[in-house]
Amino acid sequence: MKDDIRTILEGVRDGSINIEEAVLAIKEAPFTDIGFAKIDTHRSIRQGVAEIIYGEGKSAEQINGIIDAMQKKGQENIMITRLSEDKFAQIAKDRTITYHKDARIATTGEMPRPSGTGKIVIATGGTSDIPVAEEAAVTASFLGNEIIRLYDVGVSGIHRLFDRLDDIMSATVIIAVAGMEGALASVIGGLSDCPVIAVPTSVGYGASFEGMTALLSMLNSCASGVSVVNIDNGFGAGYVASLINHTKDPERITKA
Amino acid sequence: MKDDIRTILEGVRDGSINIEEAVLAIKEAPFTDIGFAKIDTHRSIRQGVAEIIYGEGKSAEQINGIIDAMQKKGQENIMITRLSEDKFAQIAKDRTITYHKDARIATTGEMPRPSGTGKIVIATGGTSDIPVAEEAAVTASFLGNEIIRLYDVGVSGIHRLFDRLDDIMSATVIIAVAGMEGALASVIGGLSDCPVIAVPTSVGYGASFEGMTALLSMLNSCASGVSVVNIDNGFGAGYVASLINHTKDPERITKA
Amino acid sequence: MKDDIRTILEGVRDGSINIEEAVLAIKEAPFTDIGFAKIDTHRSIRQGVAEIIYGEGKSAEQINGIIDAMQKKGQENIMITRLSEDKFAQIAKDRTITYHKDARIATTGEMPRPSGTGKIVIATGGTSDIPVAEEAAVTASFLGNEIIRLYDVGVSGIHRLFDRLDDIMSATVIIAVAGMEGALASVIGGLSDCPVIAVPTSVGYGASFEGMTALLSMLNSCASGVSVVNIDNGFGAGYVASLINHTKDPERITKA
Amino acid sequence: MKDDIRTILEGVRDGSINIEEAVLAIKEAPFTDIGFAKIDTHRSIRQGVAEIIYGEGKSAEQINGIIDAMQKKGQENIMITRLSEDKFAQIAKDRTITYHKDARIATTGEMPRPSGTGKIVIATGGTSDIPVAEEAAVTASFLGNEIIRLYDVGVSGIHRLFDRLDDIMSATVIIAVAGMEGALASVIGGLSDCPVIAVPTSVGYGASFEGMTALLSMLNSCASGVSVVNIDNGFGAGYVASLINHTKDPERITKA
Amino acid sequence: MKDDIRTILEGVRDGSINIEEAVLAIKEAPFTDIGFAKIDTHRSIRQGVAEIIYGEGKSAEQINGIIDAMQKKGQENIMITRLSEDKFAQIAKDRTITYHKDARIATTGEMPRPSGTGKIVIATGGTSDIPVAEEAAVTASFLGNEIIRLYDVGVSGIHRLFDRLDDIMSATVIIAVAGMEGALASVIGGLSDCPVIAVPTSVGYGASFEGMTALLSMLNSCASGVSVVNIDNGFGAGYVASLINHTKDPERITKA
Amino acid sequence: MKDDIRTILEGVRDGSINIEEAVLAIKEAPFTDIGFAKIDTHRSIRQGVAEIIYGEGKSAEQINGIIDAMQKKGQENIMITRLSEDKFAQIAKDRTITYHKDARIATTGEMPRPSGTGKIVIATGGTSDIPVAEEAAVTASFLGNEIIRLYDVGVSGIHRLFDRLDDIMSATVIIAVAGMEGALASVIGGLSDCPVIAVPTSVGYGASFEGMTALLSMLNSCASGVSVVNIDNGFGAGYVASLINHTKDPERITKA
Amino acid sequence: MKDDIRTILEGVRDGSINIEEAVLAIKEAPFTDIGFAKIDTHRSIRQGVAEIIYGEGKSAEQINGIIDAMQKKGQENIMITRLSEDKFAQIAKDRTITYHKDARIATTGEMPRPSGTGKIVIATGGTSDIPVAEEAAVTASFLGNEIIRLYDVGVSGIHRLFDRLDDIMSATVIIAVAGMEGALASVIGGLSDCPVIAVPTSVGYGASFEGMTALLSMLNSCASGVSVVNIDNGFGAGYVASLINHTKDPERITKA
Amino acid sequence: MKDDIRTILEGVRDGSINIEEAVLAIKEAPFTDIGFAKIDTHRSIRQGVAEIIYGEGKSAEQINGIIDAMQKKGQENIMITRLSEDKFAQIAKDRTITYHKDARIATTGEMPRPSGTGKIVIATGGTSDIPVAEEAAVTASFLGNEIIRLYDVGVSGIHRLFDRLDDIMSATVIIAVAGMEGALASVIGGLSDCPVIAVPTSVGYGASFEGMTALLSMLNSCASGVSVVNIDNGFGAGYVASLINHTKDPERITKA
Repeated sequence: MKDDIRTILEGVRDGSINIEEAVLAIKEAPFTDIGFAKIDTHRSIRQGVAEIIYGEGKSAEQINGIIDAMQKKGQENIMITRLSEDKFAQIAKDRTITYHKDARIATTGEMPRPSGTGKIVIATGGTSDIPVAEEAAVTASFLGNEIIRLYDVGVSGIHRLFDRLDDIMSATVIIAVAGMEGALASVIGGLSDCPVIAVPTSVGYGASFEGMTALLSMLNSCASGVSVVNIDNGFGAGYVASLINHTKDPERITKA
Repeated sequence: MKDDIRTILEGVRDGSINIEEAVLAIKEAPFTDIGFAKIDTHRSIRQGVAEIIYGEGKSAEQINGIIDAMQKKGQENIMITRLSEDKFAQIAKDRTITYHKDARIATTGEMPRPSGTGKIVIATGGTSDIPVAEEAAVTASFLGNEIIRLYDVGVSGIHRLFDRLDDIMSATVIIAVAGMEGALASVIGGLSDCPVIAVPTSVGYGASFEGMTALLSMLNSCASGVSVVNIDNGFGAGYVASLINHTKDPERITKA
Repeated sequence: MKDDIRTILEGVRDGSINIEEAVLAIKEAPFTDIGFAKIDTHRSIRQGVAEIIYGEGKSAEQINGIIDAMQKKGQENIMITRLSEDKFAQIAKDRTITYHKDARIATTGEMPRPSGTGKIVIATGGTSDIPVAEEAAVTASFLGNEIIRLYDVGVSGIHRLFDRLDDIMSATVIIAVAGMEGALASVIGGLSDCPVIAVPTSVGYGASFEGMTALLSMLNSCASGVSVVNIDNGFGAGYVASLINHTKDPERITKA
Repeated sequence: MKDDIRTILEGVRDGSINIEEAVLAIKEAPFTDIGFAKIDTHRSIRQGVAEIIYGEGKSAEQINGIIDAMQKKGQENIMITRLSEDKFAQIAKDRTITYHKDARIATTGEMPRPSGTGKIVIATGGTSDIPVAEEAAVTASFLGNEIIRLYDVGVSGIHRLFDRLDDIMSATVIIAVAGMEGALASVIGGLSDCPVIAVPTSVGYGASFEGMTALLSMLNSCASGVSVVNIDNGFGAGYVASLINHTKDPERITKA
Repeated sequence: MKDDIRTILEGVRDGSINIEEAVLAIKEAPFTDIGFAKIDTHRSIRQGVAEIIYGEGKSAEQINGIIDAMQKKGQENIMITRLSEDKFAQIAKDRTITYHKDARIATTGEMPRPSGTGKIVIATGGTSDIPVAEEAAVTASFLGNEIIRLYDVGVSGIHRLFDRLDDIMSATVIIAVAGMEGALASVIGGLSDCPVIAVPTSVGYGASFEGMTALLSMLNSCASGVSVVNIDNGFGAGYVASLINHTKDPERITKA
Repeated sequence: MKDDIRTILEGVRDGSINIEEAVLAIKEAPFTDIGFAKIDTHRSIRQGVAEIIYGEGKSAEQINGIIDAMQKKGQENIMITRLSEDKFAQIAKDRTITYHKDARIATTGEMPRPSGTGKIVIATGGTSDIPVAEEAAVTASFLGNEIIRLYDVGVSGIHRLFDRLDDIMSATVIIAVAGMEGALASVIGGLSDCPVIAVPTSVGYGASFEGMTALLSMLNSCASGVSVVNIDNGFGAGYVASLINHTKDPERITKA
Repeated sequence: MKDDIRTILEGVRDGSINIEEAVLAIKEAPFTDIGFAKIDTHRSIRQGVAEIIYGEGKSAEQINGIIDAMQKKGQENIMITRLSEDKFAQIAKDRTITYHKDARIATTGEMPRPSGTGKIVIATGGTSDIPVAEEAAVTASFLGNEIIRLYDVGVSGIHRLFDRLDDIMSATVIIAVAGMEGALASVIGGLSDCPVIAVPTSVGYGASFEGMTALLSMLNSCASGVSVVNIDNGFGAGYVASLINHTKDPERITKA
Repeated sequence: MKDDIRTILEGVRDGSINIEEAVLAIKEAPFTDIGFAKIDTHRSIRQGVAEIIYGEGKSAEQINGIIDAMQKKGQENIMITRLSEDKFAQIAKDRTITYHKDARIATTGEMPRPSGTGKIVIATGGTSDIPVAEEAAVTASFLGNEIIRLYDVGVSGIHRLFDRLDDIMSATVIIAVAGMEGALASVIGGLSDCPVIAVPTSVGYGASFEGMTALLSMLNSCASGVSVVNIDNGFGAGYVASLINHTKDPERITKA
């Protein structure tokens, strides 16, 4: 921004810009300058690229309204998370939109081609963890990542995990999704040498306390390289994994 | 009991037992009959065989007194648990007694020869879990079991565990000792086909909550065959494992 | 396996096996060798013997599909746990299958004859704990164990427990099922001299915290020989008890 | 109160009371009327009878000062709770005072003769619970009750409890003191037909959570007639038990 | 029993009773003797007097069956707790039975005349606590106690409590029922000089944690004389209060 | 801000400001503009008026350094909170400074004269709560408030609270400091009609959980007008109370 | 009141009031005098001004009855909180009453004109927090306050908060409403210099524990000047804020 | 592996390898094949590059022994974490080793030159969080990363954070270290567009529960891109951040 302001100031000094015009130009600058606009640009995933709507607690009408507004601005790639099948049915009446049932996510436009450094491996302990894993998988796909799914490889059938050791060893980042005791994150953390995002799920009963046990277990992982997101937060894991998988790319996910 | 009472009654009829004596004998019969004596015999590990003293919160003087009383009754094999090195030094002044430093256990007499069905494998996640594992190991040894130690085989160095797969596969019962996230119990439970006694330890920091996380994790193990004892309860694990390893022997540990 | 590999190698040396055949034979060996196949064989209870399906969260269609596949492979004895009466009705339309209503378990084939060391005693504190106890009882029966039921013998009617003291004294392993304060496990642990598997139940209200109080209580039992499984985990308790009751039998439950 | 006010008003009318005095008198009337004085009289245990000082967090000097002040007012029977041996030594220098070491209580004057309806039985699960039990015992003795001690009768040695069944059956009120899983309260509640005051203690380790497990267990007792006080609150239990044991006596403990 | 046994023994000595008859007579004695029968007699509230059925989790059919069996044995006074209005309607079809709607209790027979030492005061913090208070009130009435109700006298309208100070001062035992922060128990404990049974209720929201906050608050009451029962346990409070109110009566509630 | 920028631009146009200076000035403008300077001015309590140092975890040397720096800038009124007596002794060697022992606060300069709307009443449940209350009292005094202390007026001696009803009724804001069950806040909230700041203290034992019970209790107060600060946070309560007591004064505490 | 009593007394002295009349007048006075009536007057918001009914758990019939009674006494301004739309529909049949849908509050009469010192700013982290914020807003409006709404200004879109910095800087008191991690309260507390009332909401999932995380977070705010009310307690926050905003006004909210 | 086995088999056929050697080689092949050697190579950070020793719970002698062994193998770069100053003094007697006092880390050899993608920014809420931040900083430096420190930029002094917005905007990965309410992670997450690793610290008191509040707060961050490690786990955060900062480099940290 310095250069922009310098240019304006030079215009003022030279008389090519009058003071009123300069005041106006600079008045709009602060937020751009201190990064707010930049933040906004980054955070909302630039117009024409990708937008994310959190569907929980919004009515089909509200979501329709938001999509309409976005599409009017030219946005083609929109993702709606935590969207029930019922609401999707209402939304899908008048538009072209795809529903990812397990993930409870709807997307418009085409999924982007993978643009990240490498591959994101998503592993689950059991079959009940798959919806959370799929939320992560669809999120990361939507943000331009190649996904490898290793489902139902929990420690009670640990040989299935070892059958896929090559995938684990070659991942850029791994998302480990597990409920109950959440041991999968530690086992994968002990085998791999890339960042592992652990996602506790609310799968289990009794002393699983709706995911709390898996969460605590993952936070105490004796394997280095493991960090944790909230219970059932597949979206968050997919988002972080995408950020990591786009680390070197200076434009990161905004280019997705 | 019927026969005992019949004998008493016959004595009363014959005049060889007076009524006051008979009243007393019969009043005490119910407890004898319903098995308390039997319980007592079983539970205290018959005189001349083995006695266990919980050392925590007892002074060296108190412990000395108990040992003296037991030895007077002919008891040779005595085990004192949770005994600090300081107290042991005071107790060891005037008697022959062995201190198992890591286990914080003292024993008198010779360790019995193993009498169980098979072997008890004791595994730990890390080196900090060894004191709890040793409490289990010395307890089980004292109760007549052969022990195999697999220490520091936690999931962050999971290949060390696989190096000892033969031991795990051939165990009669396994004690899995681990702090932090306690994933070791699940991994061993997923590999073995014998009962696994999981012992959470207070090893860890932060959200390990002094063993609570490992405890909850172990209770939620997705591997079948795992049951759990209290945090740091190496003695309890060794005791249960010994009971299991003596299952077929009708006299069980009382013969140890 | 060493012998198998040795035979192959001898064949290679002798020229009776060509190298391509040997590579193929050995390539399949590793998992067998290091125990994974052995694990799999043990864990899934060998084909033709017994299979267990966790019914929770699976649709009737999915369960039907799994049963069909198993039966095609010749599996006669299949157990489905946590199965609602509704789903059972759908499954039972086209096949011969038995529903154990209290236990919420369905089984195909005939229950095996008991093959364990002794008897498994299953006790409950109250009548509300019976469903969890039945899950344990049917599981253990299905795995080849003789069961003795002592229901509604909680400490508020402790004389009923004493009426059955002989059963308690003669058990090979006892499963103590109780909600509320879970004192039953301690009382039974104080009377018996065999392993006690404690199962906390979610029976209770207020500060029972859906089984948490019973769970904590059981973990802190002052009676030795008690280990604990997850809240309401009747299946787990029946499974562990069966493992213990088959301790001496080298083939264990796989022969059931 | 009406009469008092009428008297004041008549004084005003007669001129024998001036208005300022009357305003003050009437302003203070409500409190007098609604019984605070009466409360005060009851609560503080009438002068000349008994006074209780909570010693925790008070210095020896402070306690000495309070005792001096009380004794000046003619108070002979003073009890100081939660008093360390060190502080007692300082206090005992210049006065006649008795230290109840296990209870950590000091008392002046003679213990009153029992004045209650019957006997208070105080039972403990183990030897480590004795200090809390003694706090209850000395408190109740000081308040005029006959005490029967049943120590170390926990469920791991349940036959010792049955040996004392007569005491339990004949108690007016029972205080059950136990740590770990606190099952003693339920067992005693299941055997007796009088009020049981349960006192959880902080005895235990790991998942005993410094008395929380025993507390929750006791609150969920399946035996009717059990109510609970705070962890380690021997004083509170002794105080409640004394109130119950003096129920019929209209003057209750204030006469003690 | 001593005398009974003595008589039998004298018969045996005299020859008036043969040994077989004596064995049979004595064989049945033990439980009577050691108090189990006595317990049973006491606990179940002697036949012809009063019986209590816990209705939760029992079907109308089951309850009907139990009532029929009791009435056949001549039992007129039966109380069923935690009984929904629906189930009551089914039960009331074919018999004379009264429903106490707020208390969710049904009773048969006439309520007994009060037989206790004095009066039981039952106070609530708010109107939402009344169902729990009524469970206590009907229970205590059924067990032969005079009840005084002080409802909606919580600390946010503390003057209403002071209006009823006379009732509080003259109670034999007080039941304080409150949710939210449960301060009512402490305020009443600070005003009264009789035992206070505190009943936390699940009334509240947010950080009231369904009664946990009130429970903890009551356990920490700075007022002496307060003991606590489980959350929403009106029955337990009424039962304990009745025991206390019958303290001096040697036959206690069994005579009610 | 517009005017400032206009001035700068005019300077640029006129040549009185060079472009580099202008760039810098404008770059810094946003923060100035959006109020950070204003914030800073308000928050740090303007130089020459009052400064607060959090003493916990800072060495005497570090604190001395900070005081020196402040005093060099002309600051006379400095308050250091959570300061141990030892550290104070070191700090007091070379300067004039006052130690408020109970509050563990040191202050330099003279306490300001009260400048608030009315009076702040600070009440405690017991004597052990006084240190926290004093932290609040000294903080509020230092910020220019008149304080009335009502110590040891907890609900177990509730008449002492009523003796001071006039103070409670006339307060502008009340700070209620209590541990154990924290009922004081509700009682005061029920009596007063001004904002009540509740401060839970860690006073208590057992199920007081170091202030958690008092905290939860206060958050659930059934009396309106109560808000809560962290456990033992006397400083925070004094600070909030001072803000409230200076509400109308547009310059608020910054003028103190 | 002193003056009232004085007047009566003067009347008595003068003979203009006879003693019976004076007794009656004074008999009603005590509560007024000692503040109870004053409390009552203050608390219930004087007749003719404002009344608040807590709608939760009351039927439409009950609420209608209370409103009728109040209106008969001349009360025009009545507010019913926590009122479902269904119940409102029933209540609205026969009377003029306004429903504030988001706030779930109904009000009769006209909203009063703002009478406070300044403005109350109400900010929310997200759109899901709005119902709680509206409960606060309608409550405070009903009590005579001017409200500024800053909704959806949470830290994930922190620039939206900075856009409204002027509102924050000029508030008399701020209510910060947020779920999830509740960081909004700290950020606002760090920017403002007036009292901040933090309201945690139950918005979130997983480890948000229905508002517990936001609650704890707000209690630990590193910004001074923040106090906290119960989870989702918008009414409480609005009430406290109104008290603060009327601080200087000696009659406070009673004049609203 | 095929080729290896083929080679062995050819050796057997040719007679250049005897059968015993071949059995051993093939028996070990599975582990080699499935990657354990590869894992081992990656995980231990290749010899000659870097080794990490967890110092907690190891004696100075033990650590010295490990260092000696490593250095004999040619390892120059060794890092010892959680090392007290005392133990360091003992270790430093006979070798060249550097102590990073705040981080409580010792390192041998020279710190590597940064080899990552970009810069790691480490921010703390307060000064008390610095030790944890330094543990992260030294760890990451030791693993070849460039570090930018932004200390004491918590939300109570949020303008200091905005002064460093450029650093935040240009980071490759940010570590946010904060205790108390942990809001810093959310604020930074709301401003930045790279992965944020949140580290809760045990800084705080009362309801901070030794870091639990900050932990929960961070897990619920409303800002995307935030993942969390255990309380005070600076090492873990530095390790994960280094993995992320080396994402594109196929050899990753093993080359460091």
